Amino acid sequence: MRCVVLNTGTELLLGDVVNAHLDFIAREIFSLGLRVQEQRTVPDGEAIRHALSDLFSHCEILFVTGGLGPTTDDITREIVADLLGLQLRQDGQLLESLKRRLAVRKIKWTASIARQADVPSGAQILPNEHGSASGLYLRGNINPRMSSPHIFVLPGPPRELQPMFRASVLSTLRTIVPLSSALDRRIYRIAEIGESLVEQKVGDKILAIPGIELGYCARPGDVDLRIVGDSQSLAHADIIIQEALGLSIYSVAGENLEQVLAKLLAERKETLAIAESCTGGLLANRITNVPGSSEVFLAGYVTYANAAKIDILGVDPGLLEQDGAVSEPVARAMAEGARGRAGSTYALATTGIGGPSGGSPEKPVGTVHIALASESETIARKFFFPTDRETFKDLVAQTAFALLRRKLCSTSS
Amino acid sequence: MRCVVLNTGTELLLGDVVNAHLDFIAREIFSLGLRVQEQRTVPDGEAIRHALSDLFSHCEILFVTGGLGPTTDDITREIVADLLGLQLRQDGQLLESLKRRLAVRKIKWTASIARQADVPSGAQILPNEHGSASGLYLRGNINPRMSSPHIFVLPGPPRELQPMFRASVLSTLRTIVPLSSALDRRIYRIAEIGESLVEQKVGDKILAIPGIELGYCARPGDVDLRIVGDSQSLAHADIIIQEALGLSIYSVAGENLEQVLAKLLAERKETLAIAESCTGGLLANRITNVPGSSEVFLAGYVTYANAAKIDILGVDPGLLEQDGAVSEPVARAMAEGARGRAGSTYALATTGIGGPSGGSPEKPVGTVHIALASESETIARKFFFPTDRETFKDLVAQTAFALLRRKLCSTSS
Repeated sequence: MRCVVLNTGTELLLGDVVNAHLDFIAREIFSLGLRVQEQRTVPDGEAIRHALSDLFSHCEILFVTGGLGPTTDDITREIVADLLGLQLRQDGQLLESLKRRLAVRKIKWTASIARQADVPSGAQILPNEHGSASGLYLRGNINPRMSSPHIFVLPGPPRELQPMFRASVLSTLRTIVPLSSALDRRIYRIAEIGESLVEQKVGDKILAIPGIELGYCARPGDVDLRIVGDSQSLAHADIIIQEALGLSIYSVAGENLEQVLAKLLAERKETLAIAESCTGGLLANRITNVPGSSEVFLAGYVTYANAAKIDILGVDPGLLEQDGAVSEPVARAMAEGARGRAGSTYALATTGIGGPSGGSPEKPVGTVHIALASESETIARKFFFPTDRETFKDLVAQTAFALLRRKLCSTSS
Repeated sequence: MRCVVLNTGTELLLGDVVNAHLDFIAREIFSLGLRVQEQRTVPDGEAIRHALSDLFSHCEILFVTGGLGPTTDDITREIVADLLGLQLRQDGQLLESLKRRLAVRKIKWTASIARQADVPSGAQILPNEHGSASGLYLRGNINPRMSSPHIFVLPGPPRELQPMFRASVLSTLRTIVPLSSALDRRIYRIAEIGESLVEQKVGDKILAIPGIELGYCARPGDVDLRIVGDSQSLAHADIIIQEALGLSIYSVAGENLEQVLAKLLAERKETLAIAESCTGGLLANRITNVPGSSEVFLAGYVTYANAAKIDILGVDPGLLEQDGAVSEPVARAMAEGARGRAGSTYALATTGIGGPSGGSPEKPVGTVHIALASESETIARKFFFPTDRETFKDLVAQTAFALLRRKLCSTSS
């Protein structure tokens, strides 16, 4: 069934608020085999009328967000009723519950609030546990004299819309959507290789499977490969993907690389320390975003200045003098120094030139050395990521984490 | 002039990626007096064709994002050329620069990458400094036999689109948009107080100024106050805002708090060290995102484990035993230890409980102590931020930076 999302709200089009509804609704309805075919944002006001009348013939299920509040620019309820030729009637029970809600919160009753108790005739009220604006469900062809999709009218604030969606909308959708239409989806998260190479390795083979849909999404050092289809096609595609990409796939459960690492380290009862120069704390920040990471992450040393590399990590001043801070010997010494200092199983170290300044002909902006120290050996790799400062940090962090993951996957604990 | 944004990408409609383009583009074009009148998202594929032909007659300026990559689902370039009746021609210079880009990065050349050098005849190339997909500008009525808006075709990844927009799109827009339509806007960035209190302090007074528009945007520990109007109204509002909010305004130039801090410290020729427990490297990461921060930031110590607090920062084990790691004495000892170790002018320290686990009745999840050590004194403050782990880290970082900024603004160097 064709689903469309219409977001209303001038604040969305001014860039004051990021639209959080589309990705929320898309994820929620996916489990029912539904997908959003199109989404639009229009400002408060008459633009809503034009968009609605345009979309009525475009879809079978329409989600409309915003414009249910008490202020003068909130007119979605009125426009929907008008377009469908339905009377608006004040609902006595809803009015009473609104009055109670405001009394509890000691908010003064104003005439405009009463509009929130108006309901188009035949519409079902979707209770709002977190605000005063109820949602509405208008079944398909609710006015028998005209054709219209199933329409869900939902409040604009995500903290009101989201619980309402889970409590009321999903159950209504289940009565509308035929079960057989459910497709499945798998997302493979991939490190170490880029989007083009991923496609080259698996693209043609997967597209040759009948009825499968394939998509890619790339972030710095990270590619998501998404396949959608019936369970049989997915199983077939899975064999191809696993064979071609192997260990470069780090999650099929939507985890990020630091979540995977924290889990692997915890399972192995091993620990990590991190010495960072060019990444400036990003690796430590990412790993400590994972709940429970305090079990596996012992310490981070953001040794930005050379003096800190010497003082904290015991890097030989002679090495810094001879090879420079951005060099393989210094990366190795940082990793080994951090591992010794923290008493951890592993230590990662980064040293590079993020720019925009600080480069030289021999060591241009984007040069980075990453080292990984463990009991048996210290590995060092050189990379070149000539890009902006923050993307550089993202790429180095992702590459360093991928290096550690490879190590963990290739050795038994 | 009527502006419309068309975002393409199945990943947006599946909810895999949040659409960051609308609010970015809306903010950028606002300075030219332009507003987005409507936005749509459609999946990769032929839906792009239908949306484009529908929108050509709806607007004077059209921004299209996504679908410029090298993979088979990237077909925006081809559809735009086809709809406008323009030949696609391989641009020799673009092809050469693509080849150089890949060679530098040691990425294998594949036939599909060459498609990124195809350009519709008459279109202007918008260079991409951060990726391989160039953008395109097609002037209004580029094919004289049909009417079409000014069209900007831009890459999907925000880290490619955003610099391209600032480097190339805005200057082109300035040649299209009549100057007189530009209103002015000021954005005040505020720390230390919340959105409601900001509104309470200035809201009514500003709205009483004729012809002014007022908006708020809140992020963790941060409020943007936006006013729009003619220059006279803005000057009037500015007096009210400066008087009511004073030092809580940390920037009127769109800088974030770490940029302000790095600048202040550099001006004063002073330096900073950071000792982090609960923020896990976030403060160090934020300050090192600022280009040139190596001049003022000496070292960060992510002392997650108690052993690291003792070893690196010289925290007295007795204090940890007696008061616990999350306590004012430990926060003070961490800040003083970091300052001594790094030899910096100032040191910030954070210790708290980010959750979801680790809380107790006396120290519930959300408890945090922040300390600031300087030559003359060590300040410590206790806060309670009961929220999710990442928002907690954001709030603590913002609060710690605001504390240092107050110190810098209240003392002469």
